[in-house]
Amino acid sequence: MGPVDIPDIVVGRLPIYLRALSRMALEGIRVTSSHELGRRLGISSAQIRKDLSHFGEFGKQGTGYHIQFLIEQLRRILKVDHEWEVALVGVGDLGRALAHYNGFRNRGFRISLIFDSDPAKIGGQLNGFEIHDAARLGEMIRARGITLAMVAVPAEAAQKVTDELVQAGVRGILNYAPINLAVPEEVYVQYIDPVVHLQRMTFYV
Amino acid sequence: MGPVDIPDIVVGRLPIYLRALSRMALEGIRVTSSHELGRRLGISSAQIRKDLSHFGEFGKQGTGYHIQFLIEQLRRILKVDHEWEVALVGVGDLGRALAHYNGFRNRGFRISLIFDSDPAKIGGQLNGFEIHDAARLGEMIRARGITLAMVAVPAEAAQKVTDELVQAGVRGILNYAPINLAVPEEVYVQYIDPVVHLQRMTFYV
Repeated sequence: MGPVDIPDIVVGRLPIYLRALSRMALEGIRVTSSHELGRRLGISSAQIRKDLSHFGEFGKQGTGYHIQFLIEQLRRILKVDHEWEVALVGVGDLGRALAHYNGFRNRGFRISLIFDSDPAKIGGQLNGFEIHDAARLGEMIRARGITLAMVAVPAEAAQKVTDELVQAGVRGILNYAPINLAVPEEVYVQYIDPVVHLQRMTFYV
Repeated sequence: MGPVDIPDIVVGRLPIYLRALSRMALEGIRVTSSHELGRRLGISSAQIRKDLSHFGEFGKQGTGYHIQFLIEQLRRILKVDHEWEVALVGVGDLGRALAHYNGFRNRGFRISLIFDSDPAKIGGQLNGFEIHDAARLGEMIRARGITLAMVAVPAEAAQKVTDELVQAGVRGILNYAPINLAVPEEVYVQYIDPVVHLQRMTFYV
């Protein structure tokens, strides 16, 4: 079944399921149910069963889901059963935090190419990787065949960096700059902006 | 019109509109249309008009939206027409990046109380604020009447910290720890996990 058949909102929940199942596996749990998983996530068991049914039969009536099997299936579906190389652009506080973040590796990602445009930073080391001149971004990303990038530059620079990333073959961008990016239709952008999340809560609080 | 009447997905788009409009104001633009705003955001103009119509009449047929007026209305609706004090728990790389992030203040938020449980960090300064002992979290948050918090502690500690925050009166939590948090119904949690966002893209890439 191709991506076109699956509602985007369902796709968005799969990483949440994968994260919760991995946590359960870490706790030594081997089998679970849509009820138990739903209770942990605040999602109805019917919703979980419906979401998973888009991709096949993963559980058995009465015995539930084998966690390790379901983890492997979700990794395959999300294409994180192998490790993706990710380029990081921007070595401010946030870029440093991302480079040091140890939550990527076992979950399918590895920052392997780092760029900044500040001469004082270029040539330095970050988490064992050299910080490269952002002027060489296109050339180096293309040579490595990297298709994912994180943008952690100031808002003013984000669109220019994005254009260069797309030109170099990047197809997925995680954008930390607080602006919307214009990209061709075949490029996916996800946004992380703490203020957007906070404002969404203050509406309710 | 109360929050209960507005679909959550509409509420989620308001901060995006506010961010784009603030950007336009910064660029010196004074009037815009749902078409222009939609083009910038990759959202249909009909969707924007429909979303805004939940809250009143903000534009005039033929003349469009006065940006500053619409910004003020959205700030009022999202309750960021005043500044919220936010507590930050966890002073690792990410906590430091958040404390130094200069994108909060003009958008309704100010980190004003910082906690960590590491004796080597307690008593130190971060962005002009003292780092307090996490053991005093409940007492200090309650005394200040703070209702928003960011959790940037390791996954293992996040639920315990969350329970203490909720006990102290916090009603909105921005969670950076890669686990789902159990909270009472009246507490809102938003999640920021770069891996969840990346996995959502690899499905498509």
